[in-house]
Amino acid sequence: MSDQIKFLLPENRIPKHWYNIQADLPKPLPPVLHPGTMQPIGPDDLAPLFPMELIMQEVTTEREVEIPEPVREIYKLWRPAPLYRARRLEEALGTPAKIFYKYEGVSPAGSHKPNTAIPQAFYNQQAGIKRLSTETGAGQWGTSLSFAGGVFGIDVTVFQVRVSYDQKPYRRAVMETYGARCLPSPSTETEYGRSVLAQRPDHPGSLGIAISEAVEIAAKNADTNYALGSVLNHVLLHQTIIGIEAMEQLEMADVYPDVVVGCTGGGSNFAGIAFPFIGAGLRGGPKPRIVAVEPAACPSLTRGKYAYDFGDTAHLTPLTKMHTLGSTFTPPGFHAGGLRYHGMAPLVSHLKELGLMEAVAYHQTQCFEAGVLFARAEGIVPAPEANHAIKGAIEEALRCKREGKSEVILFNLCGHGHFDMAAYTNYFSGNLVDDSYDEAELAMALSGLPSVSEV
Amino acid sequence: MSDQIKFLLPENRIPKHWYNIQADLPKPLPPVLHPGTMQPIGPDDLAPLFPMELIMQEVTTEREVEIPEPVREIYKLWRPAPLYRARRLEEALGTPAKIFYKYEGVSPAGSHKPNTAIPQAFYNQQAGIKRLSTETGAGQWGTSLSFAGGVFGIDVTVFQVRVSYDQKPYRRAVMETYGARCLPSPSTETEYGRSVLAQRPDHPGSLGIAISEAVEIAAKNADTNYALGSVLNHVLLHQTIIGIEAMEQLEMADVYPDVVVGCTGGGSNFAGIAFPFIGAGLRGGPKPRIVAVEPAACPSLTRGKYAYDFGDTAHLTPLTKMHTLGSTFTPPGFHAGGLRYHGMAPLVSHLKELGLMEAVAYHQTQCFEAGVLFARAEGIVPAPEANHAIKGAIEEALRCKREGKSEVILFNLCGHGHFDMAAYTNYFSGNLVDDSYDEAELAMALSGLPSVSEV
Repeated sequence: MSDQIKFLLPENRIPKHWYNIQADLPKPLPPVLHPGTMQPIGPDDLAPLFPMELIMQEVTTEREVEIPEPVREIYKLWRPAPLYRARRLEEALGTPAKIFYKYEGVSPAGSHKPNTAIPQAFYNQQAGIKRLSTETGAGQWGTSLSFAGGVFGIDVTVFQVRVSYDQKPYRRAVMETYGARCLPSPSTETEYGRSVLAQRPDHPGSLGIAISEAVEIAAKNADTNYALGSVLNHVLLHQTIIGIEAMEQLEMADVYPDVVVGCTGGGSNFAGIAFPFIGAGLRGGPKPRIVAVEPAACPSLTRGKYAYDFGDTAHLTPLTKMHTLGSTFTPPGFHAGGLRYHGMAPLVSHLKELGLMEAVAYHQTQCFEAGVLFARAEGIVPAPEANHAIKGAIEEALRCKREGKSEVILFNLCGHGHFDMAAYTNYFSGNLVDDSYDEAELAMALSGLPSVSEV
Repeated sequence: MSDQIKFLLPENRIPKHWYNIQADLPKPLPPVLHPGTMQPIGPDDLAPLFPMELIMQEVTTEREVEIPEPVREIYKLWRPAPLYRARRLEEALGTPAKIFYKYEGVSPAGSHKPNTAIPQAFYNQQAGIKRLSTETGAGQWGTSLSFAGGVFGIDVTVFQVRVSYDQKPYRRAVMETYGARCLPSPSTETEYGRSVLAQRPDHPGSLGIAISEAVEIAAKNADTNYALGSVLNHVLLHQTIIGIEAMEQLEMADVYPDVVVGCTGGGSNFAGIAFPFIGAGLRGGPKPRIVAVEPAACPSLTRGKYAYDFGDTAHLTPLTKMHTLGSTFTPPGFHAGGLRYHGMAPLVSHLKELGLMEAVAYHQTQCFEAGVLFARAEGIVPAPEANHAIKGAIEEALRCKREGKSEVILFNLCGHGHFDMAAYTNYFSGNLVDDSYDEAELAMALSGLPSVSEV
């Protein structure tokens, strides 16, 4: 057998700890502010929505956080995820670079999201919670939490943005297969949903509205909590299992990355692959370049402002300091539904501000072109979100070709595109366009950022 | 870490040979007959459609057929496929049985079909063929050949049954992602297609028509061959890699199966998991029970006649002796599109006739119920075809529970259901019914079997 392409770890090598980058930050994260008082919040402020274990993970500065045994048991269904050497892609590009990718599409839900859905459901079960509510846009997160809820005997209610609910019935079918209840948002189940429908009965919904509905349900019911699939520190913490495994697998391949690439929406899959490498660099190890790839239509890291902002459009959530396009910013329609968030995870934003990483933005047709090239070479049809990471990795590989360098490039292939083939159909039919956001709207959204005296 | 659930093999353990059960048959296969002369055909009769390597694999009695190195290189993209112990399913059933499943959904196309698509494309490339034509119904085979053609630089034309082409646009998108050309059948590209359209411009198509179109293209063009995804001996041969790997993985788990279960349409995934175990039994090893599970709506093994019949509705193909419902039999609409064939692979039929295996039929709602139970326990959402194998395995596990036996059950999970979620939507909405075939129609189809004097 010639050159190895798959680097597999047995299930007894599933990491025993997540990596917490807060332990190694040269400067701590700015505090989270209460939306009413604009003062730093404490654990009790979050208690109506989250179990205390997750709230403590939000703020801990311990470097290693133990992965509970019942979580590792469920991780065994698909983890450790494989690391691939993309030899056929390298050949197609004619690059001297060595391209590796971690493939998170092997999870039941087809993306990295179960890495955090499983522990979130577990900690909620331990806290006696009977129901979890959440929102979903593209559907990856709703699917993952549905699966996790089923595993730990928690009822899951998913508010799916109505336009997505209508256009992607198959996503709903997956959630129902896992036993979840899926509602189109705005719904008649919440006060907020009813108020929106009263004004506009055919409202197509938005992620902001769906978040508000899910939060309302959780805040009003003692046995119900809320779960979020990205942005928060504990979510990013759970995703670091990606990078920890990748580090061990790259050791099997006897290499260390020169560049680490991930796509960014809320920031969780990027953090998952990148944080363990950034942390190793902060502790004196090698410092690979870290590259976040975002959509040009929703470019929070490359065009947003680093400022305090709300997480939702209704301004019910706490304020965090992050790269934001303004909570009223609405990106043009594009197909990577998982990358449509107006803000960026505070931890990722902080690292960007500290100069510990780079960011670059690409248009979606470029990304689909990269994804199709990848599919033909490697077989896997990637999710539209993942195509951004592929595009970033290919650009690095072509740079290596120009410069005659055989660098090691690692990227995260965060999921497959099996439920997103409508986007590929649009791409092949030429109906996919590179809509730009409205510069005037961005300026207005940024001018509307809340005024906060720095703490 | 407690009990192991995943049994992985490194890629250097990909088998070097396929297993040919023709070497161990106590009685040879009846010959294949020419549709014109009704006399046994020779290799030259098949040469317009297939490369000589595949024709020779059709008839060889060598026990081991070497897997070419370029094929093994591509197999590395997903093989060896994982073997799972379904511990959570066992718990859900409360059975003392040990349930193992081989998971073929990890392939790029999401099923076992690339196991044969890759070698078929390779041998055709070696023979100088520039284009492959084929048909597809559900889409698994068309997807797999599209991928394989792309890998070996062969243009692939897929005739997709028009109703499926219209109802499953995402399948087409996957085929196009891999670079294939996908046409609705009946099409205007063939004489036969034009003749069908002349009679009925809105004809919904059928697998029989699509086969005829694909064969016509191949027969008329010297640089074009035809490829079939099941039924033929060489296809079943290529699939034996499933059982060969499973045997090695069960050794890692220190068990040998008491029962081996697979679903049957044309017979290829069933043969893949079962033949290596049947062969070991024929050579003096242990003899597990071998159970084929078929849909009650298209029950060729349990209700068909073992007789010579045509492979297609237009009666252009050679005649083979097989369990058949009659080539004019039309099963009622049901969702396991891969299990709608009127006949059964001659090798599987022969083994059934020799008493070396059993067969059982289940209705589709029972199978979806089993699939949903499986998905909630194990995470993977199975293809409707695979749900039949799951149903069969669950029934065996429940028997073990009744009998207090801790037997080892092995089944083949031949693919995921990501492109078949419409069927799950129908199941949850209660719109899935257990249509039975028409007994009178079956009787008529069987009475119309060709009259052949036994050779």
